[in-house]
Amino acid sequence: MGTGPIRTALKVDFNKPAQEQPYLHNRWHPDIPTVGKITPGEVVKVECLDWTGGQIQNNDCADDVKDCDLTQPHYLSGPFEIEGADPGDVLVVEIQDVQPFEDRPWGFTAVFDKKNGGGFLDAHYPQPAKAIWDFEGIFCSSRHIPHVRFPGLIHPGIMGCAPSTEVLVEWNRRESELVSMNTLDRVVAELPQPKNAHAGSAPEDLKAKICREGARTIPGRPEHGGNCDIKNLSRGSKTYLPVHVPGAKFSVGDLHFSQGDGEISFCGAIEMAGIITFKFELMKGGIQELEMKSPIFIPGPVEPHFSPGRMLTFEGFSVDEAGKQHYMDVTVAYRQTCLRVIEYLKRFGYSGEQIYLLLSCAPVQGHVAGIVDIPNACTTMGIPMDIFDFDISPGAPVLKLDMGSCAYTSGKK
Amino acid sequence: MGTGPIRTALKVDFNKPAQEQPYLHNRWHPDIPTVGKITPGEVVKVECLDWTGGQIQNNDCADDVKDCDLTQPHYLSGPFEIEGADPGDVLVVEIQDVQPFEDRPWGFTAVFDKKNGGGFLDAHYPQPAKAIWDFEGIFCSSRHIPHVRFPGLIHPGIMGCAPSTEVLVEWNRRESELVSMNTLDRVVAELPQPKNAHAGSAPEDLKAKICREGARTIPGRPEHGGNCDIKNLSRGSKTYLPVHVPGAKFSVGDLHFSQGDGEISFCGAIEMAGIITFKFELMKGGIQELEMKSPIFIPGPVEPHFSPGRMLTFEGFSVDEAGKQHYMDVTVAYRQTCLRVIEYLKRFGYSGEQIYLLLSCAPVQGHVAGIVDIPNACTTMGIPMDIFDFDISPGAPVLKLDMGSCAYTSGKK
Amino acid sequence: MGTGPIRTALKVDFNKPAQEQPYLHNRWHPDIPTVGKITPGEVVKVECLDWTGGQIQNNDCADDVKDCDLTQPHYLSGPFEIEGADPGDVLVVEIQDVQPFEDRPWGFTAVFDKKNGGGFLDAHYPQPAKAIWDFEGIFCSSRHIPHVRFPGLIHPGIMGCAPSTEVLVEWNRRESELVSMNTLDRVVAELPQPKNAHAGSAPEDLKAKICREGARTIPGRPEHGGNCDIKNLSRGSKTYLPVHVPGAKFSVGDLHFSQGDGEISFCGAIEMAGIITFKFELMKGGIQELEMKSPIFIPGPVEPHFSPGRMLTFEGFSVDEAGKQHYMDVTVAYRQTCLRVIEYLKRFGYSGEQIYLLLSCAPVQGHVAGIVDIPNACTTMGIPMDIFDFDISPGAPVLKLDMGSCAYTSGKK
Amino acid sequence: MGTGPIRTALKVDFNKPAQEQPYLHNRWHPDIPTVGKITPGEVVKVECLDWTGGQIQNNDCADDVKDCDLTQPHYLSGPFEIEGADPGDVLVVEIQDVQPFEDRPWGFTAVFDKKNGGGFLDAHYPQPAKAIWDFEGIFCSSRHIPHVRFPGLIHPGIMGCAPSTEVLVEWNRRESELVSMNTLDRVVAELPQPKNAHAGSAPEDLKAKICREGARTIPGRPEHGGNCDIKNLSRGSKTYLPVHVPGAKFSVGDLHFSQGDGEISFCGAIEMAGIITFKFELMKGGIQELEMKSPIFIPGPVEPHFSPGRMLTFEGFSVDEAGKQHYMDVTVAYRQTCLRVIEYLKRFGYSGEQIYLLLSCAPVQGHVAGIVDIPNACTTMGIPMDIFDFDISPGAPVLKLDMGSCAYTSGKK
Repeated sequence: MGTGPIRTALKVDFNKPAQEQPYLHNRWHPDIPTVGKITPGEVVKVECLDWTGGQIQNNDCADDVKDCDLTQPHYLSGPFEIEGADPGDVLVVEIQDVQPFEDRPWGFTAVFDKKNGGGFLDAHYPQPAKAIWDFEGIFCSSRHIPHVRFPGLIHPGIMGCAPSTEVLVEWNRRESELVSMNTLDRVVAELPQPKNAHAGSAPEDLKAKICREGARTIPGRPEHGGNCDIKNLSRGSKTYLPVHVPGAKFSVGDLHFSQGDGEISFCGAIEMAGIITFKFELMKGGIQELEMKSPIFIPGPVEPHFSPGRMLTFEGFSVDEAGKQHYMDVTVAYRQTCLRVIEYLKRFGYSGEQIYLLLSCAPVQGHVAGIVDIPNACTTMGIPMDIFDFDISPGAPVLKLDMGSCAYTSGKK
Repeated sequence: MGTGPIRTALKVDFNKPAQEQPYLHNRWHPDIPTVGKITPGEVVKVECLDWTGGQIQNNDCADDVKDCDLTQPHYLSGPFEIEGADPGDVLVVEIQDVQPFEDRPWGFTAVFDKKNGGGFLDAHYPQPAKAIWDFEGIFCSSRHIPHVRFPGLIHPGIMGCAPSTEVLVEWNRRESELVSMNTLDRVVAELPQPKNAHAGSAPEDLKAKICREGARTIPGRPEHGGNCDIKNLSRGSKTYLPVHVPGAKFSVGDLHFSQGDGEISFCGAIEMAGIITFKFELMKGGIQELEMKSPIFIPGPVEPHFSPGRMLTFEGFSVDEAGKQHYMDVTVAYRQTCLRVIEYLKRFGYSGEQIYLLLSCAPVQGHVAGIVDIPNACTTMGIPMDIFDFDISPGAPVLKLDMGSCAYTSGKK
Repeated sequence: MGTGPIRTALKVDFNKPAQEQPYLHNRWHPDIPTVGKITPGEVVKVECLDWTGGQIQNNDCADDVKDCDLTQPHYLSGPFEIEGADPGDVLVVEIQDVQPFEDRPWGFTAVFDKKNGGGFLDAHYPQPAKAIWDFEGIFCSSRHIPHVRFPGLIHPGIMGCAPSTEVLVEWNRRESELVSMNTLDRVVAELPQPKNAHAGSAPEDLKAKICREGARTIPGRPEHGGNCDIKNLSRGSKTYLPVHVPGAKFSVGDLHFSQGDGEISFCGAIEMAGIITFKFELMKGGIQELEMKSPIFIPGPVEPHFSPGRMLTFEGFSVDEAGKQHYMDVTVAYRQTCLRVIEYLKRFGYSGEQIYLLLSCAPVQGHVAGIVDIPNACTTMGIPMDIFDFDISPGAPVLKLDMGSCAYTSGKK
Repeated sequence: MGTGPIRTALKVDFNKPAQEQPYLHNRWHPDIPTVGKITPGEVVKVECLDWTGGQIQNNDCADDVKDCDLTQPHYLSGPFEIEGADPGDVLVVEIQDVQPFEDRPWGFTAVFDKKNGGGFLDAHYPQPAKAIWDFEGIFCSSRHIPHVRFPGLIHPGIMGCAPSTEVLVEWNRRESELVSMNTLDRVVAELPQPKNAHAGSAPEDLKAKICREGARTIPGRPEHGGNCDIKNLSRGSKTYLPVHVPGAKFSVGDLHFSQGDGEISFCGAIEMAGIITFKFELMKGGIQELEMKSPIFIPGPVEPHFSPGRMLTFEGFSVDEAGKQHYMDVTVAYRQTCLRVIEYLKRFGYSGEQIYLLLSCAPVQGHVAGIVDIPNACTTMGIPMDIFDFDISPGAPVLKLDMGSCAYTSGKK
């Protein structure tokens, strides 16, 4: 009989550095000690810091974004031992709720400096920018991006079970290979990095090993999910995660109040600290039974609900800004799609950075439209017109509204 | 007062080869003669052949797919002069309805031979396959893929205004460059091809020029749209197309009864002949006013409506089948996502080709999920569980149903 | 293999009076001869006149409404023998499509004279009025009610199997009783009426009997459905109808391009002639198996799709216009709700009749909200704001638009 | 800058009788003292008891329902002074969130004794019954009604501004008249009742007046809303309430985790204590500007989302259980509709009381379908099939599942 309060399986502390909280960690490794046990069927709450561990402030200056130390993230809560979980099982994770902390009803979206993380459009927007979002129940709005307001599709950016040693070795192999073959003038992957690695409550020796070997939490990875940044893993969703180690060692973090498809500005969701409510089930031997190589999920039934007839939709193709034709490159096409939206919305007085931030965090729909018509991939981005308090439709007059400014670094603007 | 019947601006003839019908064409060129005039505000119907011009038959053998001549497509209806349209305008195309012909209530989906067109998964499914779909009002079902049935999101794969000479030159420049730089062991773009070029009613001299210069209709292109294969351009949608030549010279074709995001098997929609009802408006000087570089659109308000809680969703990442890590490659990630769905659904007894065909044409949702978490792009594909007449959810027992077979070439199976 | 055209099981003739078309009828009676046989599983088309049999014209005068002869309707197509149907079975009716005739792309909505049929608000709007709607594919608009446009949720107002003799006797018993007990100053039910009764192809003797006994088609009735006027019986819906006589004797008519919940102005839907596509199945012994006393249905998956956040919703309670408190009377409450919408929308310049017509036919949502809070029932009516081309939300400025006029009788306005 | 916690404008106390909490009240009267001031634009939280003030327990016996004292409800939180509100204004109430208390994640649905409140079907289900619902984030389930689970459309049953003296006098006039004319063998309205009246912090003299004159909170009323029990006043909704007294004197209570259209079992929602988050705005002179006689609202954009193709829908008509024909009586029709659903679902092993409880609280859709086809009104009730964990569709086999039992009184079962 569920008459009592729900157990909080992990509490975070806002008065202590994330590095000193032993129930957090920021690397993936099979040996990070568990922080507690959860029984399948039990409903539990887990608290999470924002992914930076509190590096970003609720103010009007993006210096904190510029200086954000990217060896630290993501601070994850866990890992939890799931009772009875064995390698080969599938862990079914039902997200029953996600909420910001009552006394921290705000979050942030940021464009990172091209030289410190960057983002999907950093060739165009290389400098840091930031927007603070205030939460009003299910809605959010920002003093940095006026005239928009939308309901959050609240979710965790990261969920996953710990890799086995074999899986970890494979990650490090293939990502090292990518790095070693890199010819681009940018960082293409983050390899294990002892600096600021947080191995939870691991004793010194073990910690050293974890710091040396532990995979970064930055990418999602097919074998376990991780930082997928899928906006639909919200309230009511069920995610099926492969189990690689005894006890599953499940971790969660990087809570988002809202995110657009692609999370294009990198720190692009509305990042927040908060509380997530879970119920777990186990599907014994589920990996083989489901022929599962990567996680699958079913979204919840209560997503924000916009009419298709109210989605202003932009097209983009795999011809880049320089007019160069790429072969079936969806990444190029999606970047072009984003740029088309920015050009369109700038007409209303927003700056490019404001729109870049907005497309990152608002519930925009990014679709792969056509992927077989050589040489052009075609993608679309749908913008729900209902999130604006003025008419953005193509026929509407372009009003002169005060669009204010997002936060920049102290040197700029 | 709209009391009379709607004017049919173009009729096709099923008893004549497409090449002999002067109101069709299969290349993009500014000089193809117009086939009629349409006034903004008028409601008109336009008939279209299927894109192959009738090369594919309603039977149980895929030899016609194997032998399909890819120098012919796509047979487009038009171009139409839109009264008053000038370069720089935007042509607003409202699709009021799309219907198959009453006496041809069927369509086809095909996997093309890897050596003749191929498709997104041709490394895995190199041989031709075909499914015939029967239309029952808004629904379709196939004897070649039992136990599925879904409402069509009926739409044209191709709409566009003629390129100007400048635009055409640019297309040919950049696509030639791609071809000349190609190191892949596959065709990366189709350059102008006189063989089987159809220049409508152009007299001989002009026809020769058009055949020599005219761009192929295979890819969508940012400047005008064309073969975008966007499944949401259905009944009630409004598309905003840039005008590049006097009179706009609008053409349409490649009607689809339904398509999934990506149209992955190349001839992946449910291809059909049919009738499309339009109303056009002009936005004078709209290109500059909207800062438009590529088409935009607003879908119609009557799309098939599935609960998010009924979308079984698969994840894929930019690590390929060989375990190679790619850098932020959405194309690779989407291919992996497709493969994950196929592995899952094969458990129920479908062949890989059947599922490949199904994902191409059913209303599956392909999203760009995360595109900033180096080095892995993450994409998702959502499958509406309601289109199956048995339970495909992860917990459901795997029944042994008779899944029959799709059509293969006479040599196979 | 469904490669051929769909069979049209019944064609109507626009050049002949409805009374002379032997495959039509306008009374419910078990002995009306069948007009053809349909096999379960077969897909068939059935043509229908509008319910008045063509009495209403596409013009700007409501004299035809005033003079409309209400002993004639509804002209139904059928009855059809469903092969193998026996009393006790359930006939499963899948509506695969509904379309207006190609050359009659229009329909009408009318307010009937209080003395000739009346309507739900005839105390307030006692005089005839009319609006003609033009169909543009899935959309409709009216020169008589400017600035609105919406997609149709197209459906038949009437479907049903013939009553058995026992059922018919019961209908006549209880409706006669109502009439005999009537103390209201209005017609409360229409009993069998030989005048203008149409018994299909019945020979004289039988015809006389049918005309004498046959139930009017005006009300829906629990035992078989009939004139339910349920707006959601649209494309893709499945209705489960009890079978009372051998062969089921299924009839259909009263096609609507669109209707609001309640169809409040009586001839309140957008009435049209058209073609409906069916597939039937039989559930042998289904009445007992499903414990069925009245029809049930599952709507189709492609209804027009408005965001709940775009539904302006009005409340009404069971206190009437005179301030009299009624006890839990949903009918009174719903009438009040309608009046509230009219008062609100009149602010924009519409006449009361225009709004009355609009609420009858647009896809408004009428809900029973609270029915237990003595003494007040509470109902709501939700208006999709997206159907207007100006902003009707409570905060919006009230623009002065030209709202024209609906059609009135020649004596009026 | 909303960086701090949201102010809680009113806290309730679970350790004290509701009658002793001076910031609660259970009658409507203009003179009940305000409990605090709220500024338009401010976001505030307000705590609420369940409507019975804690009379119903989380156990398996319905004796508490049988004995529930109906002179007490509803305990409302307030009234609040809204700064600047004057008679004639409209108070715009945005509900930003509604949540159960963290440590009370449960609610109840009850059938009241026919002699103590009764309900919409008390002729059929005259005895008390109860179901306890456990909340799991957005979902709820009940040990008393197995095999169903659904997301809550959480909302307050009651919101309203205080009546003016004139309005109050009118309420008492018309309801007294109803009572005095009553010929039914049941209570038709609850007139002012000093017993257990709670006038907030009113001093003795004033309290006596309020107890004597104060209107009961049981019905919703057109002039101010009140106990409308509209399930869609959930998160994100905006309600426009007429202001009748200086400062508006806004009160709220009767929180529901979920409710079906009609709330048919009287205490039919999932009743709970909880916390509601508001933001208010004022529309000065709004009553006249909007021609407002009753509240209006716009639902929030995040309602649970079921496909129309998954709504099993039942029809009912105004012919009662005894076969008596009623004239256009929607109340009778809706009762029949409810009975049809019960008959259908009993086939699966549920008791009538279980289904009665379920239809009261699950998100079922009750529509007025046809209201002009004399003599039969037609209503529908749509049941979302997705809330069951087994297949309830008409074709599905009827499995033998253990349906347990709801709670009855100690004397019964």
